[in-house]
Amino acid sequence: MTDIMRMSELYVPTLKEDPADAEIASHRLLVRAGMIRKAASGVYTFLPLGKKVLAKVESIVRSEMDGIGAQEIMMPVLQPAELWHESGRWDDYGPELMRLVDRHDRPFCLGPTHEEIITALVRNELRSYKQLPLSLYQIQVKFRDEIRPRFGLLRGREFIMKDAYSFHDSQESLQQTYDDMSAAYGRICERMDLDYRPVEADSGQIGGSVTCEFMALADAGEAELVHCSCGYAANTEAGEGLARPTEYTAADALTKIATPDVHTIAELAAFLDIPESSTVKALSGKGKDGVITVFFVPGDHDLNELKAARVVEGFELLTDEEMEAAGLHKGSMGPVGLPEGVRIVAASSLQAIPRWVVGANEDGYHYVGAKQGEDFEVDVWADLVVVKPGDCCPKCGLPLEGARGIEVSQVFQLGDKYSKSMGATFSAEDGSEQNFLMGCYGVGISRSMAAIVEQHNDENGIFWPVSVAPAHVCVIPLNVGDEEVQPAAERLAADIARAGFEVVIDDRDERAGVKFADADLIGWPLQIVVGKRGLKEGKVEIKLRRTGEKRDISIAAVAEALAFTKRNIKGSGIGAFGSLFSE
Amino acid sequence: MTDIMRMSELYVPTLKEDPADAEIASHRLLVRAGMIRKAASGVYTFLPLGKKVLAKVESIVRSEMDGIGAQEIMMPVLQPAELWHESGRWDDYGPELMRLVDRHDRPFCLGPTHEEIITALVRNELRSYKQLPLSLYQIQVKFRDEIRPRFGLLRGREFIMKDAYSFHDSQESLQQTYDDMSAAYGRICERMDLDYRPVEADSGQIGGSVTCEFMALADAGEAELVHCSCGYAANTEAGEGLARPTEYTAADALTKIATPDVHTIAELAAFLDIPESSTVKALSGKGKDGVITVFFVPGDHDLNELKAARVVEGFELLTDEEMEAAGLHKGSMGPVGLPEGVRIVAASSLQAIPRWVVGANEDGYHYVGAKQGEDFEVDVWADLVVVKPGDCCPKCGLPLEGARGIEVSQVFQLGDKYSKSMGATFSAEDGSEQNFLMGCYGVGISRSMAAIVEQHNDENGIFWPVSVAPAHVCVIPLNVGDEEVQPAAERLAADIARAGFEVVIDDRDERAGVKFADADLIGWPLQIVVGKRGLKEGKVEIKLRRTGEKRDISIAAVAEALAFTKRNIKGSGIGAFGSLFSE
Repeated sequence: MTDIMRMSELYVPTLKEDPADAEIASHRLLVRAGMIRKAASGVYTFLPLGKKVLAKVESIVRSEMDGIGAQEIMMPVLQPAELWHESGRWDDYGPELMRLVDRHDRPFCLGPTHEEIITALVRNELRSYKQLPLSLYQIQVKFRDEIRPRFGLLRGREFIMKDAYSFHDSQESLQQTYDDMSAAYGRICERMDLDYRPVEADSGQIGGSVTCEFMALADAGEAELVHCSCGYAANTEAGEGLARPTEYTAADALTKIATPDVHTIAELAAFLDIPESSTVKALSGKGKDGVITVFFVPGDHDLNELKAARVVEGFELLTDEEMEAAGLHKGSMGPVGLPEGVRIVAASSLQAIPRWVVGANEDGYHYVGAKQGEDFEVDVWADLVVVKPGDCCPKCGLPLEGARGIEVSQVFQLGDKYSKSMGATFSAEDGSEQNFLMGCYGVGISRSMAAIVEQHNDENGIFWPVSVAPAHVCVIPLNVGDEEVQPAAERLAADIARAGFEVVIDDRDERAGVKFADADLIGWPLQIVVGKRGLKEGKVEIKLRRTGEKRDISIAAVAEALAFTKRNIKGSGIGAFGSLFSE
Repeated sequence: MTDIMRMSELYVPTLKEDPADAEIASHRLLVRAGMIRKAASGVYTFLPLGKKVLAKVESIVRSEMDGIGAQEIMMPVLQPAELWHESGRWDDYGPELMRLVDRHDRPFCLGPTHEEIITALVRNELRSYKQLPLSLYQIQVKFRDEIRPRFGLLRGREFIMKDAYSFHDSQESLQQTYDDMSAAYGRICERMDLDYRPVEADSGQIGGSVTCEFMALADAGEAELVHCSCGYAANTEAGEGLARPTEYTAADALTKIATPDVHTIAELAAFLDIPESSTVKALSGKGKDGVITVFFVPGDHDLNELKAARVVEGFELLTDEEMEAAGLHKGSMGPVGLPEGVRIVAASSLQAIPRWVVGANEDGYHYVGAKQGEDFEVDVWADLVVVKPGDCCPKCGLPLEGARGIEVSQVFQLGDKYSKSMGATFSAEDGSEQNFLMGCYGVGISRSMAAIVEQHNDENGIFWPVSVAPAHVCVIPLNVGDEEVQPAAERLAADIARAGFEVVIDDRDERAGVKFADADLIGWPLQIVVGKRGLKEGKVEIKLRRTGEKRDISIAAVAEALAFTKRNIKGSGIGAFGSLFSE
């Protein structure tokens, strides 16, 4: 076994050109640095250096899971359809679920998540409250047939996840594990040196109510966030930020005005020469009960359909035909003069605006000065808007900032959703049979790797945090054939390896420029250049990849100086090796 | 993080009863010991202790692969059909290949093996002979839709494998890596404490010519082997052992005899009161060329259809209808008086038998004394039989012994089968473009786990080799509530953990009998019983699970005595801890 990796032997096919299909830095750089290759759309192979990074991310996640007493298991990829019929998700899940039949025509899916499998695993075997709480986790390949796979590892169809599931006899116990997991997830982000925010989120297809996403802030992220200096952060899909509508005060009575060719809020605001926030936007929908409902939100905000569905169960927007059939006027709906029986639901923030600028339920006309309580009555006030930067923080009232994020992990309280539908019970202390309360907790392993690159790159390539770097130090002999340089570099690499670091030596017979470019692209945290000139004075050049700082240092002192920094490396890697440059 | 595992917290659902579908020891015991659970036919979940064993097997395999310079990668499960069309295996592979289409109706398969993916991975990127040889490996989940999944982890539909692939510019280089891999596979078996034989085998669907299987000897194995004290061993499907037909000397001329109601070799031998080895068995087939061929083998042997196909390309047995159309008489075929144009192929070992007892090509009649060269001529002599115990060793001539084996690993020389069909070339030293020579090398990870149990079990359960045990030592306090016993056991467990061992403490409030039974079933290599009576004298009882030997030992000396054995544990685990009992 060799302790020192050699670039002459490692399979690291670096590329000078960006791959044509790569839109974001992590995709571009992981391919160029010879770490991943596409096998099919949204399906990747991890090459040796990529696999090393992946293994380090896994190892961080594993140690944090073990640290809170979760036990590692390994569930199968193939999941029988019967279990998904029991939970009801076979029909609910949609085309993202990859399905197949075996040779006997029995249907299976490729696991995108394992609630069904684990619930079936413990039912009938996890019998007593004395065995609770129990947390089980696995690190495994998962599948989701994205309609448009893209962004490399960020949105693939086959990807690596850590998923954990917990079982409880009380809400307090579930909350405790949920808190432990959340804390562990925070530590995982920190150890990977990710700038992240835990944000309020929607629970989507997994189900359950309480949930939090851990978002790595990055412009390449697909999630839109709002966050506040007070610590509050939310996915705009789920956030509760308060809109700040402004009142149009020029009208003190209900006044109908002709608004020819005005069909949108932007056109209305321009026509009246007022801000969009002074107008009121209307959208129509209906729920399971069939009652036609018109939703009103401040003109500068969008209706959040998930929130609409919380007010009106089974909410769906009306089609143009349905609107016409219901007597509604697309482009000029308003609360005054709606057809009989139409329900009015309005955003809470509009309560502060007595008189509205809003449609007149007549093509080509709007009202200004429509007054709440006089000209119309609102049936239900609710949080309805898609929160956006500039809205008031619901915790402290300051304006929210906007950001984009990559969801690297998420924690859920599932409650009894799966244990009830699948009949998984235990004997409680009082002797009764009860359904487990469950939690589930996921970390995107391959996605975290991409998120790290999104936050750790510059024009020359990647700079890995020490904690997940494919190796800590790269020793670069400038003249491989030289009878002094090459042996000195080999001895130095061996010394550094003995000091407990992972070392790679670039022993290829290549030009210095090629080696420097590859070292920067691949992103070894520390580079040590061994050259003829320096050696005459017994010196080598060390370079911190992250900042580009360089320094000459006595070759005899390198290993010892590195050993001095070793304590830092056990942490997240922030600043590790930095102390070498701080004198 | 706790260094000591606790039975009170571990999820280990042991069972008193054998599972109904378990036919063999490893299936039965891995389920009963709470290590695996079936999720679907041939599809298993690994519970915490099973996952620990799996991880140790993986770690042994990984260290041996790294040790010979192979580099770990991770290829995808989803493989696009295009690549399998290129290699020609999409049509060849049959129903064992699990296939599916994605949401855009593009066909994929779930990888049973990764020759196509890896060949596509390196073509166009591994360009120069200077980069060769190169060995890449992965440890990953694989899929094969067995028609009858059974025997637990031995023949599953979803299973864990290590597969490696090597690339070469010469046969010498391929042979070198093939030898390195074979040696590593031997060490892997030894480290897992497996009694194994490297055997000649058939290369099956993978292709290529040179191949060797590593067989763990076990009655539960599906492979039939022959082996010899000289070291020769072979799968009966591929072995070259020589049959030993015996001559029927009573007839010295071609004599037709009536054999009413004789349709099989057994009936013929009984009718004539001679051993089956004195008769000659005939089977009819045809090849791609359409020529009807009759194969003759000694009556006590079966025709090996793989060997038949080496003589007659595209060999298939004739159906009853085809035999009738060709004028052949099922149940009484012989070389004398066959229809015009029928080819005669006979087993080499029959060359030593001048006169044959064989069918007369006439229903109800056989010949005795049919003489080679006079009454008939053989067109081709060839190795045709399925070798069996008692045949002569092809290396030394001694009689072969029979055994059953579990194929835990296999090495192949693929040659240019894939590089040629898929167009994977490199620039050779002389500047020419050449196809890679390739090797491929697989280890069944989950199957090895089952093979270990097949060789390491008794009526009470499993006894794991130390190298793969879920923990090394189990400390069993007999009285959990006792104010002396419990703290003493806890201190002892902590001491042993500090000495570098993995320790589990059975701190459950259960009867001693339950704890002993579980410890034997699960198979911790060493048990240490802490009881009230022994403690009075400062003693505990240690028990070697493998042999059942017990000994009282001073509680103060345990950790030190264990530390003394630690060197042994680094090996295969054979005899580790045994020295504690050898004084």
